[in-house]
Amino acid sequence: MPDPIQKDNLWVGFDLGGTKMLSLVFNNDFKIIGRERKKTKPQDSTGVPVERIIKTIRSALDSSGNSGKALSGIGIGAPGTLDLEKGIVLEAPNLGWQKVPLKSVLEKEFSCPVVIINDVDAGIFGEYHLGAAKNVNSVLGIFPGTGIGGGFVYNGNLFTGKTNSCFEIGHFPVVPHGIRCGCGRYGCLETVASRLAIAASAAVAIYRGEAPHLHKLTGTDIATIRSGALAQSIKNGDTAIEQIVRQAAQWLGIVIGGLINVLLPEIVVLGGGLVEAMPEIYLQEVKFSCNKHVMPSFAKSFKIVTASLGDDATASGAAAWAKKITGNIRT
Amino acid sequence: MPDPIQKDNLWVGFDLGGTKMLSLVFNNDFKIIGRERKKTKPQDSTGVPVERIIKTIRSALDSSGNSGKALSGIGIGAPGTLDLEKGIVLEAPNLGWQKVPLKSVLEKEFSCPVVIINDVDAGIFGEYHLGAAKNVNSVLGIFPGTGIGGGFVYNGNLFTGKTNSCFEIGHFPVVPHGIRCGCGRYGCLETVASRLAIAASAAVAIYRGEAPHLHKLTGTDIATIRSGALAQSIKNGDTAIEQIVRQAAQWLGIVIGGLINVLLPEIVVLGGGLVEAMPEIYLQEVKFSCNKHVMPSFAKSFKIVTASLGDDATASGAAAWAKKITGNIRT
Repeated sequence: MPDPIQKDNLWVGFDLGGTKMLSLVFNNDFKIIGRERKKTKPQDSTGVPVERIIKTIRSALDSSGNSGKALSGIGIGAPGTLDLEKGIVLEAPNLGWQKVPLKSVLEKEFSCPVVIINDVDAGIFGEYHLGAAKNVNSVLGIFPGTGIGGGFVYNGNLFTGKTNSCFEIGHFPVVPHGIRCGCGRYGCLETVASRLAIAASAAVAIYRGEAPHLHKLTGTDIATIRSGALAQSIKNGDTAIEQIVRQAAQWLGIVIGGLINVLLPEIVVLGGGLVEAMPEIYLQEVKFSCNKHVMPSFAKSFKIVTASLGDDATASGAAAWAKKITGNIRT
Repeated sequence: MPDPIQKDNLWVGFDLGGTKMLSLVFNNDFKIIGRERKKTKPQDSTGVPVERIIKTIRSALDSSGNSGKALSGIGIGAPGTLDLEKGIVLEAPNLGWQKVPLKSVLEKEFSCPVVIINDVDAGIFGEYHLGAAKNVNSVLGIFPGTGIGGGFVYNGNLFTGKTNSCFEIGHFPVVPHGIRCGCGRYGCLETVASRLAIAASAAVAIYRGEAPHLHKLTGTDIATIRSGALAQSIKNGDTAIEQIVRQAAQWLGIVIGGLINVLLPEIVVLGGGLVEAMPEIYLQEVKFSCNKHVMPSFAKSFKIVTASLGDDATASGAAAWAKKITGNIRT
């Protein structure tokens, strides 16, 4: 359906991260025409937490040459527990936020529809709308990092629970009587395949003297053992670290294989810090696990690719989602 | 929206099973007003395989007092691999069918829209529309039997892959380096939780002298170790068999718990031969596994119940699905 007011369309997407916030401005053709990035300051958590978001959006609009123009809609990709319907951030520990009515504050400020959405869902919807999964109807997105984020686009819509986000693939149980997970349960996928799980195994390998290169880069403090250092140490010849990462990627692939059998996505998009740092290892091992576990009759019905939007994914997807669900209505 | 031609509505649902076929006739209010059950004869596989289906539907219409009246639509729940769009049974090994154009033959015969649908999906849609999951929007249905069937109703629609059915929960990988599955892979849920897996373990227990009651009922031939006999032997005191069934139900519950974390259904419906024979054991053990593995924040958002439509589920769901997707259009 042609858009009756297309020449005026202006959309804003926002990525509300624990350490940085990014605002993007999109035109009619959904090309990026403005952007602004700010650090998420600790003081955002008290007083007027939304003030800094408003400033960032205004700066992005300035940079696009559209300050003062009416917006068609704003989409916010936010972390934590959300009330999607009411547009409230119920709890976001990384931001120190509780019950922040993001939607109503921003709608008043910008006089346009505002939608909020889980940040991982936004990233996957971004890859669906503009990135690695463009023109595909059913997309499984998996983003292993400190935790393991996941999301699913089904028939062009984001898959969500009744009132809140779901798709907690990181908490799929994989090891009976496994180790304790951050969620309070035991043996979740995150306990064997997240960056923290890899870092813990890597620290043990360093301690044992099996990973001299990583030892030099990070020492045994798991807080410092991040994706870039892991990738570098593998390049430098730490085979123990390579084995640890490959094993983690295989675990990820087992659950992805199981979800392919259940959801039959047309494409699986792998993203996040670990995949960005070691794309070949992740593609290889996830494909290996999927070849072992996807039903033979489904084996040729899907592709596995890496994400393509990088840091813009969440803000892009949030803007695209706002466009989709507000249906271009101006208020 | 009120139905403009409601007083004339007549719907037929059909369950095309490997051993029996069941046709139900539904009126305006979607109450059953006619039924007919016939054996699925081996000779159905050659010559005119659809002939017997047509006869069964005509008998059901007769029994409802509506022979000769125009039908609003027919829904067929069918096994095997289906082309949902074209309404073709591509391959159904249990029926000996290959490329049977069910939809076109029946549409010509009855001059009304015909839809085909996976038989397990139909059963779950039946429970959603008329049974244990009535008035709930998001339903995960799990039917352990000889295999393990599964299906999902999301926002009132059956979840399917692009062209064919999916939701092969029985082939979720759960045991790394596990035993061989019928699908050709290793360690699928069916290898530890299907009726066949239970029967194999039970036969070993009988052979070892650990299950004297089941021994009397069935001997060690796994073809004879069916749900009813398992239930009876447990009632008679075979604790080894009870342990085997409970372990299988726990495995089932682990994957259900994982899928709750991903899909956040409002209700989980357990059905099929094993659950019908031993509902308390299945409810207990699935709840036990879910309590261990569902994320604490999701723990109160769903219910687990047993199916309520019994043998009518598939035919009922097929009729309801026909009504839903044909939108009451007469041809």
